[in-house]
Amino acid sequence: MPQPPLPALPYPGSVPASASRASEIDLEAARRRIEGRVRRTPLAHSRLLDARAGARVWLKAENLQRAGSFKARGAFNAALVGLEQGDRRGLLALSSGNHGQALALAAAELGLAATVVMPASASPVKVAAVRGYGAEAITEGVTQENREQVTARLAEERGLRFIHPHDDPHVISGQATVGFELAEQLESRGVAEPLVLVPVGGGGLISGVLLALLRALPRARVLGVEPEAGNDGQLSLQQGRRVSLPAPPQTVADGAATMRLGELCWELIREHLERIVTVSDPEVAEACWWLWSRCKLVVEPTGAMTVAALLAEPGGGRLGGLERGGAEVVCVLSGGNCLPQQLASLIGPRA
Amino acid sequence: MPQPPLPALPYPGSVPASASRASEIDLEAARRRIEGRVRRTPLAHSRLLDARAGARVWLKAENLQRAGSFKARGAFNAALVGLEQGDRRGLLALSSGNHGQALALAAAELGLAATVVMPASASPVKVAAVRGYGAEAITEGVTQENREQVTARLAEERGLRFIHPHDDPHVISGQATVGFELAEQLESRGVAEPLVLVPVGGGGLISGVLLALLRALPRARVLGVEPEAGNDGQLSLQQGRRVSLPAPPQTVADGAATMRLGELCWELIREHLERIVTVSDPEVAEACWWLWSRCKLVVEPTGAMTVAALLAEPGGGRLGGLERGGAEVVCVLSGGNCLPQQLASLIGPRA
Repeated sequence: MPQPPLPALPYPGSVPASASRASEIDLEAARRRIEGRVRRTPLAHSRLLDARAGARVWLKAENLQRAGSFKARGAFNAALVGLEQGDRRGLLALSSGNHGQALALAAAELGLAATVVMPASASPVKVAAVRGYGAEAITEGVTQENREQVTARLAEERGLRFIHPHDDPHVISGQATVGFELAEQLESRGVAEPLVLVPVGGGGLISGVLLALLRALPRARVLGVEPEAGNDGQLSLQQGRRVSLPAPPQTVADGAATMRLGELCWELIREHLERIVTVSDPEVAEACWWLWSRCKLVVEPTGAMTVAALLAEPGGGRLGGLERGGAEVVCVLSGGNCLPQQLASLIGPRA
Repeated sequence: MPQPPLPALPYPGSVPASASRASEIDLEAARRRIEGRVRRTPLAHSRLLDARAGARVWLKAENLQRAGSFKARGAFNAALVGLEQGDRRGLLALSSGNHGQALALAAAELGLAATVVMPASASPVKVAAVRGYGAEAITEGVTQENREQVTARLAEERGLRFIHPHDDPHVISGQATVGFELAEQLESRGVAEPLVLVPVGGGGLISGVLLALLRALPRARVLGVEPEAGNDGQLSLQQGRRVSLPAPPQTVADGAATMRLGELCWELIREHLERIVTVSDPEVAEACWWLWSRCKLVVEPTGAMTVAALLAEPGGGRLGGLERGGAEVVCVLSGGNCLPQQLASLIGPRA
């Protein structure tokens, strides 16, 4: 039974997300704007992963990005757009995860104030990270239920500039630089027709990557990867409308535990993305262990979903087409912000 | 009070270690021999580490080496030397750690049999790794006390070729390729006078690095790093003789929990190394956390000792000379073979 739509996220201090905002997307400007501010992350290759997956596999290591995830790209771009427009208001984020840290970093580096609203239940290490960048973290009295209201009130009362974690044309334009870098790195390796696996949460990363690859590597195919429990994107593509899950999904892939895609993200995904596949929590755990033990990389569960999709079906059933051999696959590792305890408990004892 | 010397490790199926074996060291041959067999590991750089350490810091990431540590270099070189001499005997290692895995990998790739003697108390994951490479792991009835005897008997009965984890000229020559790579990577970055921190266990890695840098980057300074509890090398340099600890040291840096330096290693260290500094277990834990949270790298405790030495004394007191500013420091991260549980329990909860 289809669920009733939930109220839209507020865009305090900004115009509401709408079709019109797509026109604000400017990939080339974002690329120039954030160059030197964010890291050109390596495209790693593991022979062991090739053998295991039956394809040539590349890892786009956004876990090595500044502040530990691709979110730094969108955050810097959005912050810089404001400065170009003479807007020196403090930045405001609603995020218990990577977007908050990224925005705190961007603000600090650009000499802006930043405020991050995080539920009181947020991981203390994430709160500490936000504060470590010099931002104000507001947690007291913040719950899953009232956090949007708290955020809207802060924007209003303090005159802050709210930056949405994914449903924002400047954020999407920033994330698109992952796609441009990928295109260059793949071309220099002679790869023109890759299958690019991208994690899907709210949809900001995959929207940007789709747009950039369409332009820079048009024969690339893109596939989204979601957690089984949080397959709002998959359902949306199947039903041709933006589906909202009835409740926040329970999954180890906390960065993709969204109830629905962003509105602008959905527009782009509907137009450009063919398919989203899902992975289970145990498959994500296996991927984290693989990346740990063979690649010595700390990748957070959400960031390992793409490798999970690959490892779960080495023959290519779920991914389609891999079995024809000679495939070149890119797994975007979206972030690496997690605690040793979290990975240890996810991976469990191995022998 | 000086401790009585312990009986020398056996070199079954080989000549005893002695001064004469230094003449078998051949760095250039090792370099050519293992090229393409081992990975040229990255020299990573972290701006965060620079700021924290008050120096420009480079990380030589041997945790990304094949089989997870620098040991692959010496193992491949020693195995290939045998093949060049027409010796196709199976290889034999006494190792509960990285040398066993490295030798198992080299043997498998070169079409040789391999046997690794591991105490029954060895970590099941390390036993599984050795078997995963197709080697025979012998654990039943093997104890800390009888393992050398078991190894000697196997070499004799089965006609196997024993390869010592560090006290072997071909192993040392293989490890020296870390130094050659470093010299090239540093020169291409304009660094001619680095301070190079190298972990010290039995001494094979630092011996090789000393020899290679003397040749390839003569203005480099090398500093050894040992665990506080296992400071046999430091004592040896101070006393001018090869000191043996009375019992196996208890330290999280299990790869450096040796009771004394190898005999051949000591010859080279005595001649070429100025100083060894020590780090405590909590300092190693802090370094593992730093590498985890800022660099997203899985580094085993032994491999993080060099970063521990750097972080413990940002002013440079322990390391000497850093406070003069402008210093360029290299930390060799020797390996990354450890379990999530091990790192989680070492690092503890962080917030």
